[in-house]
Amino acid sequence: MKVVIIGIGLIGGSMARDIRRAEAAAEILGMDASSSHLEMARELGLIDGEAKPADLASADLVVVSIPVDRIVEELPGILGQVGDQTLVIDAGSNKGPICQAVAGHPKRRNFLACHPIAGTEFTGPAAALEGLFDGKVNIICEVEQTAFAIQERALELFGKLGMRIRYMNPEAHDRHIAYVSHLSHISSFMLGKTVIEKEKNERDIFDMAGSGFESTVRLAKSSPAMWAPIFRQNKKNVLETLDEYIENLSQFRTLLETDQYEALFEEMEQTNRIKEILKGIPLNKS
Amino acid sequence: MKVVIIGIGLIGGSMARDIRRAEAAAEILGMDASSSHLEMARELGLIDGEAKPADLASADLVVVSIPVDRIVEELPGILGQVGDQTLVIDAGSNKGPICQAVAGHPKRRNFLACHPIAGTEFTGPAAALEGLFDGKVNIICEVEQTAFAIQERALELFGKLGMRIRYMNPEAHDRHIAYVSHLSHISSFMLGKTVIEKEKNERDIFDMAGSGFESTVRLAKSSPAMWAPIFRQNKKNVLETLDEYIENLSQFRTLLETDQYEALFEEMEQTNRIKEILKGIPLNKS
Repeated sequence: MKVVIIGIGLIGGSMARDIRRAEAAAEILGMDASSSHLEMARELGLIDGEAKPADLASADLVVVSIPVDRIVEELPGILGQVGDQTLVIDAGSNKGPICQAVAGHPKRRNFLACHPIAGTEFTGPAAALEGLFDGKVNIICEVEQTAFAIQERALELFGKLGMRIRYMNPEAHDRHIAYVSHLSHISSFMLGKTVIEKEKNERDIFDMAGSGFESTVRLAKSSPAMWAPIFRQNKKNVLETLDEYIENLSQFRTLLETDQYEALFEEMEQTNRIKEILKGIPLNKS
Repeated sequence: MKVVIIGIGLIGGSMARDIRRAEAAAEILGMDASSSHLEMARELGLIDGEAKPADLASADLVVVSIPVDRIVEELPGILGQVGDQTLVIDAGSNKGPICQAVAGHPKRRNFLACHPIAGTEFTGPAAALEGLFDGKVNIICEVEQTAFAIQERALELFGKLGMRIRYMNPEAHDRHIAYVSHLSHISSFMLGKTVIEKEKNERDIFDMAGSGFESTVRLAKSSPAMWAPIFRQNKKNVLETLDEYIENLSQFRTLLETDQYEALFEEMEQTNRIKEILKGIPLNKS
């Protein structure tokens, strides 16, 4: 199997590790905007070497794991160069703009739009983890737009990675992912900002921070190069979630300011239901 | 050593486990508003039996690990019953109101005001963990109000638990802890609320939630009985942090709405500094 990974960072690199584990003889080539990342990926053994444009035509699998704005720009061109039997997948956190970018493309049936719900707050090839996708959900959009034989090969690959498949349309994906992923990143970034601003002259104060703060602020370590384009593409949905979040915080603030402690208690008790909700997705924890 | 633990939940129970490990012969007795918690604590071996009020006079150590509103109510009465050599510590998340409640008390010098920065989102004796305090910070307030010999015994105990000591005045503690702990809990509770409200008819959607959502929403599992009184007591500081957080979220929203993506990127990049800040406190992670 010949694999080209475009963007050899956390996601592309982790996929390379799992493909190598599943198929030791696979030839894995990489492309990356950063030559130092490419070199590091080679040193780490994630890739066998650099992919040239001509490799796209002979590849069995092309993984496009670059920021979502660059997927929209580059996917049509990539798709134009692949072979008739090449499977092309992406891993972008928005699916609507990406599906639109290749709608009606002559090679549309070679592409499968994917969003593996897996990752960490770290970036680059050194962040790649073997087994990252094991037990995780992979959301596939517009499956009917992909050739059946190519779908089958994708499912075989995802089976090797241990992923659970969910099918969804791009609009529903982008609306719901704004709530369960994009909003979390903004809440975390702004929490980090609020605390850093306040405590900038008192570094010792972070000694008072425990695992609770660390947990809520973890996503504020995420890459702006990855996340700014996600928020931009999914602007409408993200603004909606942000409005509701700010409204809920403001209501909580009012309850506290006006000493309505029973209502405050009830708000929290209602939200404790998140325990049962998260228990329902044990496989999706990491 | 005779120990009385008032409130045998996550914190009191974890302390019982560590005291037992450090001193197998210790007699550990418990009091709890919940008779089922008391029974469970006995079954788990956290305590040897129920403490009677008379045990306070002969105890070497009394740990008051109950919600902060009840500490303020009950600490003066507890202190009135302990022996001349008894060390009394608390573990409340606010220190100002607790120190005020016992200011000028005839037994004030038997009390050491503490806030161990340790815990999980779980509650009750079954949540008690051996080693919970190991490597964690313990903030001590108004140390000069505690008799020197009693301080020494407290430090010996905290040494056995593996804690690192920080001294701070109660006002500074309450102001800073609002940023690095109380605000995190509100951001998490309201994130949970926003997502549950939106997705209440679509339970499958939580299948789309990954480790990022889980991390930011973890604290929304916390006990309202513990947290409502904390927010109430620290109302002034908590309102200030909430105002700044809501303001930062609103500014972020405006940047997104008005397509100021460079500024959005910079906001996030600035906040990435949290990586270095959190790296500075490796021992305080759990």
